Amino acid sequence: MSDGVLTREQILAAAQDVLRRYGPAKATVVDVARALGVSHGSVYRHFPSKAALREAVTHQWLEQSHAALAVIPDGPAPVRLRAWLSALFTAKRKKVLDDPELFATYTVLVGESSTVIAAHIDELVGQLEEIVAAGVERGELATADARSAARAVFDATARFHDPAHAAEWSDPAIDAQFEAVCDLLISGLVRHARP
Amino acid sequence: MSDGVLTREQILAAAQDVLRRYGPAKATVVDVARALGVSHGSVYRHFPSKAALREAVTHQWLEQSHAALAVIPDGPAPVRLRAWLSALFTAKRKKVLDDPELFATYTVLVGESSTVIAAHIDELVGQLEEIVAAGVERGELATADARSAARAVFDATARFHDPAHAAEWSDPAIDAQFEAVCDLLISGLVRHARP
Repeated sequence: MSDGVLTREQILAAAQDVLRRYGPAKATVVDVARALGVSHGSVYRHFPSKAALREAVTHQWLEQSHAALAVIPDGPAPVRLRAWLSALFTAKRKKVLDDPELFATYTVLVGESSTVIAAHIDELVGQLEEIVAAGVERGELATADARSAARAVFDATARFHDPAHAAEWSDPAIDAQFEAVCDLLISGLVRHARP
Repeated sequence: MSDGVLTREQILAAAQDVLRRYGPAKATVVDVARALGVSHGSVYRHFPSKAALREAVTHQWLEQSHAALAVIPDGPAPVRLRAWLSALFTAKRKKVLDDPELFATYTVLVGESSTVIAAHIDELVGQLEEIVAAGVERGELATADARSAARAVFDATARFHDPAHAAEWSDPAIDAQFEAVCDLLISGLVRHARP
């Protein structure tokens, strides 16, 4: 492959293949370059270090959970909130069921880069905050601090999106438990009608 | 030590020492017997198998989290609920900070015996259910199903009691996040006054 057409996307795709094949402990930039048929200098032109490349791969993988979340249709905030939480749970569960080995690989990578995971959580909580704030504006939800409430919703649903709980996601009771937690959280945010 | 005075408690204490010293992968019943200066037959008289002994040690360790929970004073359900959740979080966090190695050992043991952990969760959810049901009786809380609500409260606070999250418990923001989740859950259960 000519260096001239080497794109960032091609490197990230090759890096994911290499990580899956050799595991996060053994995969190197030289392996990635070899898989692409280029020199490792060509890879370093796009990513200044092995750590930067790994973080970019991790970031891209985490971003994939967002795709489904960004398209939650407009509507009453309680409905949007549940749809958003459900889409996140579905996306994470699909990832682990589709490719458990790759999921395990990424769990190691995510554990390595605390700044990448912190930015990821910030972005997700930001999406929740937007839904909560819109609900407060429409008089559907009541909370003094939309950001803190959004973070509380995110933390209270950790069992349904944190990879540490992946083993529990095939439990037959998990869907009912997810709905019960959503019910409780939404009930805690809904502005109760006072005649 | 004479076999005649060998008690269940002595065996459990010795087994914990042995597990800590050799690790869960290597510890054997013979090691436990040697630590006590008795034959392994004497240990088997109390516990029919190595698995039974390990489960008993695990059960005892989990039970220690209950001690503080059983003494939550009577009072308004929202106050009791928060005190119970806070006592559980405090007990778990104390365990990991006091002796991280023993905590890691028990995390392995707990992962081995799904029936022991299921019984433990049932017992904890039962305590929550009692608080919720008492609150409904007193007109302080509103829920159609106290058991399901109790389970939802337990699941929604996983980040603050499940050992999978132990690494997050020294985060400076964790206490504020715990209180925010409690606020939200209690707000979801409180019967809202309607004039």
